[in-house]
Amino acid sequence: MTNPTSKLWSGRFSDGTNPDFAAFSRSVNVDLRLWQEDIAVNRAWAKALADIDIYSNEELRQVLAGLETIADEFEKRAFRFQEADEDIHMAVERRITEIAGDAGAKIHTGRSRNDQVMTDVLLYLKHVLPALDGNLQELQSTLISRAEEHVDTVMPGYTHLQQAQPVLLAHYLLSLFWPLKRDRERLHQVLDRADVMPLGSGALAGGAFPVDRRSIAEELGFARISENSIDAVSDRDLLLEVVNVAAMIMLHLSRYAEDLILWSSTEFGFVELSEAFSTGSSMMPQKKNPDSLELVRGKAARVLGHVTALQALLKGLPLTYARDLQEDKPPLFDALDTTSDSVRIFTGAVRDASFHPERMRQALDDLLLATDLADYLTRKGMPFRNAHELVGKIVNEAVKRKVPLTKLPLSALRSYSSLFEADVHEALTVEFSLRLRELPGGTGPDAVREQFEKAKNCIEMERRI
Amino acid sequence: MTNPTSKLWSGRFSDGTNPDFAAFSRSVNVDLRLWQEDIAVNRAWAKALADIDIYSNEELRQVLAGLETIADEFEKRAFRFQEADEDIHMAVERRITEIAGDAGAKIHTGRSRNDQVMTDVLLYLKHVLPALDGNLQELQSTLISRAEEHVDTVMPGYTHLQQAQPVLLAHYLLSLFWPLKRDRERLHQVLDRADVMPLGSGALAGGAFPVDRRSIAEELGFARISENSIDAVSDRDLLLEVVNVAAMIMLHLSRYAEDLILWSSTEFGFVELSEAFSTGSSMMPQKKNPDSLELVRGKAARVLGHVTALQALLKGLPLTYARDLQEDKPPLFDALDTTSDSVRIFTGAVRDASFHPERMRQALDDLLLATDLADYLTRKGMPFRNAHELVGKIVNEAVKRKVPLTKLPLSALRSYSSLFEADVHEALTVEFSLRLRELPGGTGPDAVREQFEKAKNCIEMERRI
Amino acid sequence: MTNPTSKLWSGRFSDGTNPDFAAFSRSVNVDLRLWQEDIAVNRAWAKALADIDIYSNEELRQVLAGLETIADEFEKRAFRFQEADEDIHMAVERRITEIAGDAGAKIHTGRSRNDQVMTDVLLYLKHVLPALDGNLQELQSTLISRAEEHVDTVMPGYTHLQQAQPVLLAHYLLSLFWPLKRDRERLHQVLDRADVMPLGSGALAGGAFPVDRRSIAEELGFARISENSIDAVSDRDLLLEVVNVAAMIMLHLSRYAEDLILWSSTEFGFVELSEAFSTGSSMMPQKKNPDSLELVRGKAARVLGHVTALQALLKGLPLTYARDLQEDKPPLFDALDTTSDSVRIFTGAVRDASFHPERMRQALDDLLLATDLADYLTRKGMPFRNAHELVGKIVNEAVKRKVPLTKLPLSALRSYSSLFEADVHEALTVEFSLRLRELPGGTGPDAVREQFEKAKNCIEMERRI
Amino acid sequence: MTNPTSKLWSGRFSDGTNPDFAAFSRSVNVDLRLWQEDIAVNRAWAKALADIDIYSNEELRQVLAGLETIADEFEKRAFRFQEADEDIHMAVERRITEIAGDAGAKIHTGRSRNDQVMTDVLLYLKHVLPALDGNLQELQSTLISRAEEHVDTVMPGYTHLQQAQPVLLAHYLLSLFWPLKRDRERLHQVLDRADVMPLGSGALAGGAFPVDRRSIAEELGFARISENSIDAVSDRDLLLEVVNVAAMIMLHLSRYAEDLILWSSTEFGFVELSEAFSTGSSMMPQKKNPDSLELVRGKAARVLGHVTALQALLKGLPLTYARDLQEDKPPLFDALDTTSDSVRIFTGAVRDASFHPERMRQALDDLLLATDLADYLTRKGMPFRNAHELVGKIVNEAVKRKVPLTKLPLSALRSYSSLFEADVHEALTVEFSLRLRELPGGTGPDAVREQFEKAKNCIEMERRI
Repeated sequence: MTNPTSKLWSGRFSDGTNPDFAAFSRSVNVDLRLWQEDIAVNRAWAKALADIDIYSNEELRQVLAGLETIADEFEKRAFRFQEADEDIHMAVERRITEIAGDAGAKIHTGRSRNDQVMTDVLLYLKHVLPALDGNLQELQSTLISRAEEHVDTVMPGYTHLQQAQPVLLAHYLLSLFWPLKRDRERLHQVLDRADVMPLGSGALAGGAFPVDRRSIAEELGFARISENSIDAVSDRDLLLEVVNVAAMIMLHLSRYAEDLILWSSTEFGFVELSEAFSTGSSMMPQKKNPDSLELVRGKAARVLGHVTALQALLKGLPLTYARDLQEDKPPLFDALDTTSDSVRIFTGAVRDASFHPERMRQALDDLLLATDLADYLTRKGMPFRNAHELVGKIVNEAVKRKVPLTKLPLSALRSYSSLFEADVHEALTVEFSLRLRELPGGTGPDAVREQFEKAKNCIEMERRI
Repeated sequence: MTNPTSKLWSGRFSDGTNPDFAAFSRSVNVDLRLWQEDIAVNRAWAKALADIDIYSNEELRQVLAGLETIADEFEKRAFRFQEADEDIHMAVERRITEIAGDAGAKIHTGRSRNDQVMTDVLLYLKHVLPALDGNLQELQSTLISRAEEHVDTVMPGYTHLQQAQPVLLAHYLLSLFWPLKRDRERLHQVLDRADVMPLGSGALAGGAFPVDRRSIAEELGFARISENSIDAVSDRDLLLEVVNVAAMIMLHLSRYAEDLILWSSTEFGFVELSEAFSTGSSMMPQKKNPDSLELVRGKAARVLGHVTALQALLKGLPLTYARDLQEDKPPLFDALDTTSDSVRIFTGAVRDASFHPERMRQALDDLLLATDLADYLTRKGMPFRNAHELVGKIVNEAVKRKVPLTKLPLSALRSYSSLFEADVHEALTVEFSLRLRELPGGTGPDAVREQFEKAKNCIEMERRI
Repeated sequence: MTNPTSKLWSGRFSDGTNPDFAAFSRSVNVDLRLWQEDIAVNRAWAKALADIDIYSNEELRQVLAGLETIADEFEKRAFRFQEADEDIHMAVERRITEIAGDAGAKIHTGRSRNDQVMTDVLLYLKHVLPALDGNLQELQSTLISRAEEHVDTVMPGYTHLQQAQPVLLAHYLLSLFWPLKRDRERLHQVLDRADVMPLGSGALAGGAFPVDRRSIAEELGFARISENSIDAVSDRDLLLEVVNVAAMIMLHLSRYAEDLILWSSTEFGFVELSEAFSTGSSMMPQKKNPDSLELVRGKAARVLGHVTALQALLKGLPLTYARDLQEDKPPLFDALDTTSDSVRIFTGAVRDASFHPERMRQALDDLLLATDLADYLTRKGMPFRNAHELVGKIVNEAVKRKVPLTKLPLSALRSYSSLFEADVHEALTVEFSLRLRELPGGTGPDAVREQFEKAKNCIEMERRI
Repeated sequence: MTNPTSKLWSGRFSDGTNPDFAAFSRSVNVDLRLWQEDIAVNRAWAKALADIDIYSNEELRQVLAGLETIADEFEKRAFRFQEADEDIHMAVERRITEIAGDAGAKIHTGRSRNDQVMTDVLLYLKHVLPALDGNLQELQSTLISRAEEHVDTVMPGYTHLQQAQPVLLAHYLLSLFWPLKRDRERLHQVLDRADVMPLGSGALAGGAFPVDRRSIAEELGFARISENSIDAVSDRDLLLEVVNVAAMIMLHLSRYAEDLILWSSTEFGFVELSEAFSTGSSMMPQKKNPDSLELVRGKAARVLGHVTALQALLKGLPLTYARDLQEDKPPLFDALDTTSDSVRIFTGAVRDASFHPERMRQALDDLLLATDLADYLTRKGMPFRNAHELVGKIVNEAVKRKVPLTKLPLSALRSYSSLFEADVHEALTVEFSLRLRELPGGTGPDAVREQFEKAKNCIEMERRI
């Protein structure tokens, strides 16, 4: 009979584990979160063992009942880990053996922790990725709603943080819809790629007991089974891919967080976060800081770190399994938690934020219309490059004379080119500028209206994975 | 008329550019490789301008002829850059204006470098990603061929670099087929996601001239057009995704390179690279080093660096375009070059390598069969965990007595358990062990045969993007 | 009176914090470890406030007593955090106010969390870096001891994992001594650079109450005070530098871990880890895996991730403090914990490992002596490059004929060059080869003896920071 | 005689190198920049060989003359590389053999590329790091000069990009002086650590010819020689440390670049870059973009990528030399080039920038003085935490009533606390606020004056390495 206080693999060992090393190598605090998956996998495996008569019906019953008990213990936070429990898998096997005796001691027949761990992790992904997808969808909906409130709000569009051309706030807000759409596609694709059951791959060579892998997969909800046992236990590319997608999402959020933080400054004044998503200062009583968005931006860095960690972990690692791979889970889990939380906080901050259309309007510098002035000349027949240069000179003069571009009299303009005519001042308005940008994808009011339609179709059609 | 020796945007400027800064910001040596795409985009754009009567037929003819001339100059390496050519796009526009006069000076009507650059880059991806995909397919074929030579070659399979269980060399070689399959899928998906034309997005707000974006896309071979002009000019997620896939491929190669380098050591002696893929030492005359594989492994690090660079570039960057984004191309281009080269070199090294089946056979330590011994007991009814512990003790004794596991007499085994019977020694052979592993994906000879079929189907069915 | 259940900065706020955001932004679980430093800083600050008569003697007494009580509560794990405690600093201030009333409510006079946090963190570094330095010194001592056991053990030295030239195991083991010496130097230097007190810098502009910064620094044990308040609260370069040093240490350990893992394989067989630093397999009873070293190697990746995270956090962040910077502590703390643990585990594994001199001896392939053969010719007057080529040809023949290099008869050698004479076989021994390498730093027995002296002097002279 | 068109190590090889692989592994385009160092090392080595009679005086003369010739060829860009020249070292050896015959063919006696390369690289660092240090010193001087122009300029200081407290622009500008001081210290320390000559370490075991390493070191200007040959040829920690320092510098620049870009926006309007460090837009004639600073910020990401690349390269690499290490130079060289260029461009941009004191003054929101209001109450005896809360409420009311804080009548203030007296409005001015911050390191005018003194002493005392 095995001694439940010693390691389950200790037969070959005469001496005990160094206690420092035992603590160093223990992963229970990280993989505890896999308990549901581990029990599900044990359950499916027990049934498969019964199918090939490793288990009698009675033994199967004992094991399944025992697994229920264990699940209950976890649920109620009553599960008691022991010193020798290296990880969640060993803990569950140890406990099922305490409860179900020999039936428990048979549960590891024909499998290895190597295939078991990967099965647990992929099953976990099948549970949590759809939730993250839901969070993203929620953010997309929020963007559409907020954009709908601002179909008439004009703001300066920036390149190089310099005012460039007027755009609609609705257009700006929708501009985040599409990257999120791509992120969700990525999520769907990696989830599909991860929908493959490794169980039955054993330690590396494939299991030695003739269980039916396909029906186990069906029981666990996997679409496919892995094709090569070495690949199945060695690779972690799917985990890295998930972390890559998480990083991509965080990068997207971080850029819009940066803009909104900027807009929250007194100098911009385009937006104000709600108090619910702001914090104060321990020292300065007046402060109301956009900490929620700063944290999102900062946590992007954290997820990038996880990408590096996971990549460096895999680089040049000899096959097949090596204990290094235990370090795959902290970056994976933290990337998913951080991203999921960040999406929700960002959504809340955007949902509650007050945009200030009047401040945006006031901020519009009429140099924004310089391109339109060049385009005016272009439409009158001057080659664009020449028009660009000529308007550059006009701008230069206007800046030096501190006269707004739109206030330059026709005579002044005509001293540069006789192509300028009375209609030029009509062409030099924000509304005129916007109306010219009705190409699909542009900021023209009609184009934006069309964009709303597409976005809404998109969000509805998309299968919620 | 513009002065072709000054910057094309210099109208608004009174002073010249600081020469150090001019050199610092010039990207011609990096984006030169986009010349074909830039000309294609100019060609399509010129036609679109003609469709909306910016160009007369004659002007269009001039511009198209001029573009031919320029293409010819690039082809023959006769194109002469000027100091003021900041990048390939400005160089081409400057040159077309020299050649075609006003018609050239009109080419930038209604577009911006912001949408032009992204269009060039995505077009470039449409050209080079299929080539990389072809390289990967070639490597897959090579793996299948080499594996077919070794369906009967048995080698020790390793976990933790300790001998674990016997596997077929064919199984090991095929284990790289599947990650490459996933990498190719990733490549196809990112290529599909990138099959979207940004042109017409202008600087950020959308173009102001009513060109037909969809027919330009068709002309250039893009499947779709971008939905939001801000997104189209600001985001670089597709570039990062390509670099991520490149990194994934390199990580896969690096692990197999590590193994093959290991196997090339005198101590392992499982493989010998051809002289064509080895190098010698400047000092030690006997050396024949697996440098080709070491470089592949080392270059994986280089590509990981590009992932970090591109991620850090995007993190927290305010929208829309900022000059920081010029730094997107060096990591993208180098990641693609490095990965493509590495795949080809790795393929050559594997294709030419001599595997040594006899050395693999000799290396098999019979402790490899310990699991089979435990499985034997399990099949006789002992719970696996108990069998595992008991065999652990037997191994311990065998190691201490320096007797091979398979040479322990039945009597010795029976002193541990009366379940051992005369048939135990039959069960303790490499062939027996392999034959037990016929689960789909396992290393059993039949399972491997099936795996070949699947791999071949896979490679054939897959559309060559 | 402030309400201890609401945020300490909530005066300006009408609405409460969103609970999700409150949880998202709470850092107590991370910065809890700073409680000792925070109390020390509060203590020193209270005294400074008393010196400028913000505190009466009685109030000072109350606050100091209250801080004792709080320290006691932390010590006994009896401190009760409240929902509104965002971080350790707010928690301590809240609690001291509960205990000491108005005297507690005065403690934040003239300071900000911005300078307080940085002071706590640098104080923490002053406590933990010397401990890490001690761990490194311990490893250096262990290397010297193990090397002393093996001054006569000859092993193949490798380049490209190919046998290159014979070296002493002692020389190999000492080769890790010197990188660790550099790492300790780095640690000393960053610690010296971090020995600067930020307290008194306020939120960013400097404190507004005339405390004596230099005597506070003395009280807290800082050598210097910061020179610019903006720099003091904004920069995190010292934290990044610590993480960089941690990464460097981990990179050093990871390379030697890789070698030792390799040497633990059956094929090499040069070393065997003790059972105390090995683990078994859940499935394969015979396995005894070098998991301790694999984890060290894997955890190197984790620390590299922290470098990326901290770098990406700081890149392009606007000044001065932003909440992003809360994300500085998780990578810092985990890098220090992981590195410290890894050094100790690695030290234990090396201390307990059994090296196998006879296996090393057997492994020596006599092609190792090819350089010596070329050197022989060189000493006889043949230009080295020609000798190298000629010996290359001899090696080629020996390999093809499967004759050991040292067994080639003189006649065969002379067919290549008449410079070969009877003494050639004396020159072709491992001992001869070693004795030739007596340059300082070489593997010659005397040179290694000298190296021991230097290493010992080094370790003794070095101040234990 | 060796055939100069074949590889110098080809004796042992029957077949040629695969041409793709030859191209893949060639590093001449990267290490070409080491030609001066390589020739210096060859020169010193030749003299050392003469000292031990490998060279006759005549041969030494030939070789030294030949090296002069080669140097001349490089200087004049007349050196002709051949296909078989793998790297700069092989090219120089090949050429010296062409020129000096047997004397050339003897030059590699007793050394290896492994120790040669590292010696070249460290020598290179001894040449370029002082130049980088000089660039940093130049930037420090520029900051001092610009700060001296602005000792009276008041601007809003920010935390969370919200106005926090008034600071002097001089104080802000000096805040970059100190991080650069730390960076220069780091540079000096790594340079000192790298001042160690590896030559004489051979391939890994130490050289076999009794040259005098210490006098070679002296000849080459190295302070010390390496203590362990394995360490000397295997480690790259010094290179990584240089790249780490480069990254640190770039991170520092990137944060100030971010601020200056922000301040260049119309909304802030605090600074305007000169035209010499700005660029225009291809489309928008009015644009004058701070591209120089954006590129600096973007290139920070590039250098971070090099850190990741170099770290990942070293992680888990088996000892001693492996070809992977060829990938150490691209990140090192590019990090140094990029950083050096970025420092110079940043310096130029700051030197030429126009700050706008009046815009800064106008931007001051009087909520900036809220802390001063709380401090006022604190000085009157109210515990700070209560004062903070009370002022928070006052701010809340002022914001809601849209009355500036400083314009609230005394009666309104007294409705909150009777501690407010007639002197409160004197205390509520920017000048009063600044004068209170005279702690060392604070933004008070006297404190800043003192800071100038320290900065100047610092810059003068510091040895220019």
